[in-house]
Amino acid sequence: MPRPDVTLQDIRAAQARIGKCVLRTPVLESALLNAVCGARLYFKCENLQHTGAFKARGASNAVLARSASELQAGVVTHSSGNHGAAVARAAQLRGVPARVVMPHNSSAAKLAAVRAYGGQITLCAPTLAAREAAAAQIVADTHALFIHPYDDPDVIAGQGTLALEFLEQIPQLQWLLCPIGGGGLASGIAVAVHGLRPEVRLVAVEPASADDAFRSFETGVLAPPVPTHTIADGLRGALSARTFGFIRQHLHAIVTVDEQAIVQAMRELWQHLRIIVEPSSAVPYAALAGRKLDVDDAHVGIVLTGGNVDIDELPW
Amino acid sequence: MPRPDVTLQDIRAAQARIGKCVLRTPVLESALLNAVCGARLYFKCENLQHTGAFKARGASNAVLARSASELQAGVVTHSSGNHGAAVARAAQLRGVPARVVMPHNSSAAKLAAVRAYGGQITLCAPTLAAREAAAAQIVADTHALFIHPYDDPDVIAGQGTLALEFLEQIPQLQWLLCPIGGGGLASGIAVAVHGLRPEVRLVAVEPASADDAFRSFETGVLAPPVPTHTIADGLRGALSARTFGFIRQHLHAIVTVDEQAIVQAMRELWQHLRIIVEPSSAVPYAALAGRKLDVDDAHVGIVLTGGNVDIDELPW
Repeated sequence: MPRPDVTLQDIRAAQARIGKCVLRTPVLESALLNAVCGARLYFKCENLQHTGAFKARGASNAVLARSASELQAGVVTHSSGNHGAAVARAAQLRGVPARVVMPHNSSAAKLAAVRAYGGQITLCAPTLAAREAAAAQIVADTHALFIHPYDDPDVIAGQGTLALEFLEQIPQLQWLLCPIGGGGLASGIAVAVHGLRPEVRLVAVEPASADDAFRSFETGVLAPPVPTHTIADGLRGALSARTFGFIRQHLHAIVTVDEQAIVQAMRELWQHLRIIVEPSSAVPYAALAGRKLDVDDAHVGIVLTGGNVDIDELPW
Repeated sequence: MPRPDVTLQDIRAAQARIGKCVLRTPVLESALLNAVCGARLYFKCENLQHTGAFKARGASNAVLARSASELQAGVVTHSSGNHGAAVARAAQLRGVPARVVMPHNSSAAKLAAVRAYGGQITLCAPTLAAREAAAAQIVADTHALFIHPYDDPDVIAGQGTLALEFLEQIPQLQWLLCPIGGGGLASGIAVAVHGLRPEVRLVAVEPASADDAFRSFETGVLAPPVPTHTIADGLRGALSARTFGFIRQHLHAIVTVDEQAIVQAMRELWQHLRIIVEPSSAVPYAALAGRKLDVDDAHVGIVLTGGNVDIDELPW
């Protein structure tokens, strides 16, 4: 297990670095959703962040932390969507090219978003191996700087800035829930919460059909990725040794929810919060609505991670 | 024409009165929508207000401004939806009953919202005359206090608080656009803008198929209401002599948009702002996207009035 390479200090530095290029997103509440879950819920709206997802935080930090000479050949990443658009935007802010490897079955909306920020797309087969190989080839050919979607200390520190804001906006938080895929967001939040408010219970929620983080956490052994078709497309990634390190150290629990619960949760959030969230964002609320956690009237923070969906293809 | 009975002072008093029971709603921006319209747009998100609409402001002010003895028999109103829920919530906060007359073809979501706040619903035919008659009958029977949806100085002052906030949040505003139906919102905004920043150009936008405000403004003579089936169901009301007085005095222009433009605008707002707005909210953006106003790179504020739609019945 590598030693932790992201500290609260790094997250504070990230916050200062990216302050002007990310939004302090609002926190919403709903009396009706509180009643459904038997708790006081606070929704941190990263779907309203630039690029429509929290990924703008980590990508901006990773790009802004580098010198002009390190960025000379541009940047490259692989992504099913939100991280790709975030890297493209961050590169555009620095005036350097961004190349994004995306699976050929990516949604039209996510491809368009990468292009809108000037990103150059390379399509590949929809497997992790194909994505990694294509990105490695671009690095070899162009010497561009690779920015991993989550297994990167600067990316993790950037995502952690979300928690600094959230704890400031809602000081009474007792629980904090986020979805988990590769674990970059959960790791950044874990470091921030552990450093500032260690009594807050941090819980990650995962689709049951993509439960490698759950199994790794329960067994203490990093589980290999499993192929998955969960509707929560942002959560198909698997933990790295680095993110698993933070997660096993700082999380209170990982719980899983089924696909039907995710769709139902997404619909309830649209209807009652009056915002558009993608399926991944609905995963933590699904756990609360399904009473998978005994939060018992507590103050519960929920990270809504993104809002990039094709509104013509709703799953209900 | 009656003398103006709402002043900037009344709006400031309303802000102090309702501060704890309404939200300071966020303002969103989108680089993509700016590019579509050739301006810098700021969207004031009253769809994220309590009850999902700005109507919470006016209704709260009207109810909170009254003494306990005036409210003894409860309150009554007629509404196609958002004002009804807002009155029910305000009455609930004061612990008095609310009766709401609603057309029998009101959406299930809007009926449910009134009930969720404890409102007692009386259904009537979907005409203004039937609504007014049913409400008058309830007043006669119960001596409840009638709160008109827009032709009421306290309601207008409450809606005006939105403009105080907006001008504080975005001091550089040069234009301010809102939809217009009965004119309560436009009147409140007009008084606030005229008092604080008279150089800001206030424009109301109306569905072409419900253009009584446009015709009244152009001719200088209050036009009678016309039956309408505009999809913007919040804008089917007609100006009163009171609201017409504020509007003819302070508005820069009224422009109209067709039904197809409203639906297209609503879709673009959902997709790019990642929030849910109802058709009425999309009307001002439709005017900008259709280049119906020469705003020429200016800072333009847009009021998104509400977000109460049945997400299973989308018009695209």
